[in-house]
Amino acid sequence: MTQPHASPPRAAVIGIGFIGNAHIEALRRLGLPIAGVLGHEAGYTRREAARLGLRPYLSLDELLADPDVTVVHQCGPNDVHAAQNLAALKAGKHVFSEKPLGVSVEECERQVRAAREAGRHNAVNFTYRGYAAVQTLRELVASGELGDVTYLRGHYLQDWLLFDTDFNWRVGAPARETRAVSDIGSHLSDLARFVTGLDPEKVLARFTTLHPERRRPVGEVQTFASAGGQTEPFTVTTEDQASLLVEYTGGVHANFELSQVAPGHKNDLELGVIGTRGSATWRQERPEEIEIGTRENTRTVRLKDPRGAFTHYPGGHPEGYPDAITNVIRTFYSGLDGAGGDRIATFEDGLAAARFVEAAFQSHSEGRWVTVPAALAAQEGAR
Amino acid sequence: MTQPHASPPRAAVIGIGFIGNAHIEALRRLGLPIAGVLGHEAGYTRREAARLGLRPYLSLDELLADPDVTVVHQCGPNDVHAAQNLAALKAGKHVFSEKPLGVSVEECERQVRAAREAGRHNAVNFTYRGYAAVQTLRELVASGELGDVTYLRGHYLQDWLLFDTDFNWRVGAPARETRAVSDIGSHLSDLARFVTGLDPEKVLARFTTLHPERRRPVGEVQTFASAGGQTEPFTVTTEDQASLLVEYTGGVHANFELSQVAPGHKNDLELGVIGTRGSATWRQERPEEIEIGTRENTRTVRLKDPRGAFTHYPGGHPEGYPDAITNVIRTFYSGLDGAGGDRIATFEDGLAAARFVEAAFQSHSEGRWVTVPAALAAQEGAR
Amino acid sequence: MTQPHASPPRAAVIGIGFIGNAHIEALRRLGLPIAGVLGHEAGYTRREAARLGLRPYLSLDELLADPDVTVVHQCGPNDVHAAQNLAALKAGKHVFSEKPLGVSVEECERQVRAAREAGRHNAVNFTYRGYAAVQTLRELVASGELGDVTYLRGHYLQDWLLFDTDFNWRVGAPARETRAVSDIGSHLSDLARFVTGLDPEKVLARFTTLHPERRRPVGEVQTFASAGGQTEPFTVTTEDQASLLVEYTGGVHANFELSQVAPGHKNDLELGVIGTRGSATWRQERPEEIEIGTRENTRTVRLKDPRGAFTHYPGGHPEGYPDAITNVIRTFYSGLDGAGGDRIATFEDGLAAARFVEAAFQSHSEGRWVTVPAALAAQEGAR
Amino acid sequence: MTQPHASPPRAAVIGIGFIGNAHIEALRRLGLPIAGVLGHEAGYTRREAARLGLRPYLSLDELLADPDVTVVHQCGPNDVHAAQNLAALKAGKHVFSEKPLGVSVEECERQVRAAREAGRHNAVNFTYRGYAAVQTLRELVASGELGDVTYLRGHYLQDWLLFDTDFNWRVGAPARETRAVSDIGSHLSDLARFVTGLDPEKVLARFTTLHPERRRPVGEVQTFASAGGQTEPFTVTTEDQASLLVEYTGGVHANFELSQVAPGHKNDLELGVIGTRGSATWRQERPEEIEIGTRENTRTVRLKDPRGAFTHYPGGHPEGYPDAITNVIRTFYSGLDGAGGDRIATFEDGLAAARFVEAAFQSHSEGRWVTVPAALAAQEGAR
Repeated sequence: MTQPHASPPRAAVIGIGFIGNAHIEALRRLGLPIAGVLGHEAGYTRREAARLGLRPYLSLDELLADPDVTVVHQCGPNDVHAAQNLAALKAGKHVFSEKPLGVSVEECERQVRAAREAGRHNAVNFTYRGYAAVQTLRELVASGELGDVTYLRGHYLQDWLLFDTDFNWRVGAPARETRAVSDIGSHLSDLARFVTGLDPEKVLARFTTLHPERRRPVGEVQTFASAGGQTEPFTVTTEDQASLLVEYTGGVHANFELSQVAPGHKNDLELGVIGTRGSATWRQERPEEIEIGTRENTRTVRLKDPRGAFTHYPGGHPEGYPDAITNVIRTFYSGLDGAGGDRIATFEDGLAAARFVEAAFQSHSEGRWVTVPAALAAQEGAR
Repeated sequence: MTQPHASPPRAAVIGIGFIGNAHIEALRRLGLPIAGVLGHEAGYTRREAARLGLRPYLSLDELLADPDVTVVHQCGPNDVHAAQNLAALKAGKHVFSEKPLGVSVEECERQVRAAREAGRHNAVNFTYRGYAAVQTLRELVASGELGDVTYLRGHYLQDWLLFDTDFNWRVGAPARETRAVSDIGSHLSDLARFVTGLDPEKVLARFTTLHPERRRPVGEVQTFASAGGQTEPFTVTTEDQASLLVEYTGGVHANFELSQVAPGHKNDLELGVIGTRGSATWRQERPEEIEIGTRENTRTVRLKDPRGAFTHYPGGHPEGYPDAITNVIRTFYSGLDGAGGDRIATFEDGLAAARFVEAAFQSHSEGRWVTVPAALAAQEGAR
Repeated sequence: MTQPHASPPRAAVIGIGFIGNAHIEALRRLGLPIAGVLGHEAGYTRREAARLGLRPYLSLDELLADPDVTVVHQCGPNDVHAAQNLAALKAGKHVFSEKPLGVSVEECERQVRAAREAGRHNAVNFTYRGYAAVQTLRELVASGELGDVTYLRGHYLQDWLLFDTDFNWRVGAPARETRAVSDIGSHLSDLARFVTGLDPEKVLARFTTLHPERRRPVGEVQTFASAGGQTEPFTVTTEDQASLLVEYTGGVHANFELSQVAPGHKNDLELGVIGTRGSATWRQERPEEIEIGTRENTRTVRLKDPRGAFTHYPGGHPEGYPDAITNVIRTFYSGLDGAGGDRIATFEDGLAAARFVEAAFQSHSEGRWVTVPAALAAQEGAR
Repeated sequence: MTQPHASPPRAAVIGIGFIGNAHIEALRRLGLPIAGVLGHEAGYTRREAARLGLRPYLSLDELLADPDVTVVHQCGPNDVHAAQNLAALKAGKHVFSEKPLGVSVEECERQVRAAREAGRHNAVNFTYRGYAAVQTLRELVASGELGDVTYLRGHYLQDWLLFDTDFNWRVGAPARETRAVSDIGSHLSDLARFVTGLDPEKVLARFTTLHPERRRPVGEVQTFASAGGQTEPFTVTTEDQASLLVEYTGGVHANFELSQVAPGHKNDLELGVIGTRGSATWRQERPEEIEIGTRENTRTVRLKDPRGAFTHYPGGHPEGYPDAITNVIRTFYSGLDGAGGDRIATFEDGLAAARFVEAAFQSHSEGRWVTVPAALAAQEGAR
């Protein structure tokens, strides 16, 4: 195993699409050096690298062989995450991976073990942890101000796949995979675990598919790229909507809704924590507010607290989604010196999400409650 | 059977508690004459009748024998609804009954048949139909502006039973009955049926009880009356919270949440209708607004339309819960001349609610999807 | 002077238009007996009285001569308020008058003196005091929780006179009168005085008239009645909009906006009280909420408190404009036994409003700050 | 005059405080090269430059002599803006200046003329133009959808100077200067001009000072830095609050409120445009929404349109204040190739703001309406 570098960390970014560019922008805001980028194809990589003023890597080997690179940002397609992340760990790099960590529980487990053995820092980009208010909500729950948690409510509703002419590579996922659950349900699931510290134990899922057949553009498809031109019929095997009933540690019930076909709901992620003394709700579309309700006839909105580590502008100066990504990456890099912390998601959290998604899929398929396996650490501790 | 009276309708009110007084207030606002009232006990009836300036009836027989009475308002305890309503129908009275119509499906079925045979007008007070915006929402769905309905979301959350020291006769319901589902779930269920015209076909219910033991005041208990004084332990068999997954006509999925222990949620009833072209949401706590979302980047709030039959003040002059009750009663009385309409709930709707509640209870008990029987009319038509 | 009656109070209502009917409805809700009604013309009075099941009075004399009448509700046209109220007082009746108390300061002063001399109860229907939250806001200010009041912000914006085809008798007010200021500005002014206990000392007004010429329907015009049919040009001398800067007792500055031509603003009355420790805002269109802001990063919404004297339904059951009117009338009648209180507006308050309106008119006309005369009681005390 | 450089633009940043760092972050996000920074003192400059990994300039001369520098970012104290900006223009640099452009109208006029003569690009950072919704609001007004503009309402309320122990260099402005008006009023004034295309012609201002004496920390004071340690009394000559009545081109009335002592109002900037057909309101604290009201009973919220040049993330992914700054800077740099446009503020706009501020000050001092001089271009065209 290669030794970590004493010099300041230097990033290389795999994948130069929408999310890869978001990582690059965040790294630059933070003044963190970027060694270079690797795209899916040499010509594309050279063009994008030139545009960005960065070094092109023409292969993963070339990237991993660069001793200047200390951190690999994984922003490539989902199905290469596992293999490339494992190679990066083997090469002694820290890995900051986009979600999902892998396309199966098994892929995720291997990466958790590999990261532990390599002793490298690792993270999965569950972006919503990057909002200051999400950190505050977690502290609020931990403080006991809400009493004991008794019930979780949440939804993640979107409308970008509303029409049968909407298409995206996510729609074309293989038959044994989920879509709404793995794409947006995993965010909600991670958020619930992070905020409450509770783990899901059982899940009952009900999926529905509004469009069993969609029009697929002939040619390649990108996230959020609008379709145009020629299309062909495509049989959809993944869900457009899902209801998830979950039982968390200690019998806490949860009811979650997911949809990618709910008109007017753009990126409507909401989590409500119901406790024995108070309720708290956070909505991604108004990210700086936490609404707290109590039995007394008051409702308090806790606004962005400008003194927090995730807040960089005074109260009333909205910080949004790009700032959340930047906060996650900032936290990862400040953790590289060992200070660390548990405020962003690690590979373990990526594995937990995969287990939840897999259990939900099985539940829907079999029409029954399915147990969500415990965390790897817990499992191994139990041996 | 007594013949209906040619003279203007005249009401008698059974039950002089919170809701009975609300009926009396609404009747008076409408300038509708009240013949008298019947309480649970003669002394109480006399005192309350004197306070109200109304004639006391000392027995149901006395009330039903009064030829001046054309409409009986049933505001008594749930377990007397069926017997008294049946007697009133037999005496040739029209019946405007509080919900639930009966404490079992069987009780409700008998009343539906009796009302049909008697040819009397009948209604169940599902108050929320009385909001102008609920009527507008129904028309909006029927107009096709939202496209086909694909998904229903809803919740009814309260906090008045949050603490184990909160008690109420509803908490003391017998073991085979539900509480949150029959009390507030039936409102949500009626609202969904009314607004969409869809019937529930299957339900999967999950109940939770936050307080399996509560403190019961020694002595009698009224709705919304604050407890005080001596208490004794009481074993609770009814649910504090419920998640309900429902399949409606045509495979439309619904996800409903109910709670009476959600701090800060006072009377938080919300219904969202998701369609193929638009979504619409109505919230009881802001009753004059319907929020409509579409794929275009706009969100429209349709405000109270002052020209409607359920609206009596200009835009911007909020009309609330007492006005909703009054609208329901006004609609009932204007229907007595035969004009009628389907804007308020009849005994058939009360029966539909009872069937939904019973199926939910069975589903929770057996941990499986349970079929909700079709409406009586449909059943009988199918014979 | 006639002696007051020992029997329960009995109302007579002058004016059977929109607001007269609202009074009748409120009286009926309260179970208060109504002796009869007086309209502007005998035929109309007979028809409306028959519809309402009430006795028609064919003249003011007949009404005042009826010994059963203890309270006169003044809901007639503005220009008869003074003369009729004075006659009613002289006849020994209590007077509950619609606003404005009179069309000039002088008319109001005479009524204040007459009521005092007659020893009769008197009120002006500043309806917005009837909201429970307005009462709570006043208590909040008085409690000192907001610190010292330093600044008042407010607006009352409507859109019912937006188009030049919108017409109403208010538009046709004589040249020396105001419209927006006297109609809606007087509500805002009363609200500010009531909530803070501060009196306006100086005002600087700026009026604008969007439509110097409107289309006037040929024939009679009612409030909120939609125009139709033939019209004729009408030269408007009253303001559509106004900005009012005010200096209150102790140098507290206020900035108020009024408009009857602001599209989308239906009945948008809002008052914000800024104090040295906290701010509080109340909005008529969400009448059950008070929003409280402090320097700490929280914002608290105080909801309807169901325990108050102005609240009659549990939290989450919205009470609106009709309930506010009812609360004002209820408070007046419960004060007739002498218990009284200062929660609704008296003739003194009606006079204070008139003085404010007159000073605003003078300020606009002369383009300078104008002193608002002190209350009559204060003036007389100073002699 | 030095010729512009053919090579890509390269920035130098004067001032390394809060706002200087915000510029550096934005430049880095955009991948724009930064030549170096200049602080107020050599030691500080060296330390900060090292932290940022940038070249320290130890004097303005050194900075201006660097041929690599094509754009000077002026983020220094207000009283050096004019002299340094003029020197930069003389050295052939483009200038992107923080607001205010100068501390007097005369300083601003000189810079406008100098920039014109030098033929250099120039901008003043009125950040709020950088929100996508502000651009959309301007287009909405220009489209005529709201009809003719008849009235403007706005406020900018903060609470960071609420207590007399709050201090800041802005509080210590000289006696002939304003504070709330120049600091936040200039933003509101620029926003109103930008959105409507109307110019202010007359202003009537009323200032109030809550704390005529504050506690000033002994030693230096930074924006938003919390006070601590020893303090001394300081006599405040600038206003804490202001009401501004304004008459715009064509007799359009405006009513603006400013406060830096309004508890709970953090950065509460709001502009409402009232037109003959519709009203539109934008609030900085919910920056992605425009609320549009019409006489019909609907209210439409136009959400962030992800297709605009000022929008970089899909709908529902909030972009905030840091994104607005970045948009302004991006627009400036993309204009350097001559394409330009009028979407961000130039020195002319900075001058317009200065004239408005000066007229407001004069109006308050003299207690009368004061004319706001026309734009320089208009004045000169009129000669």
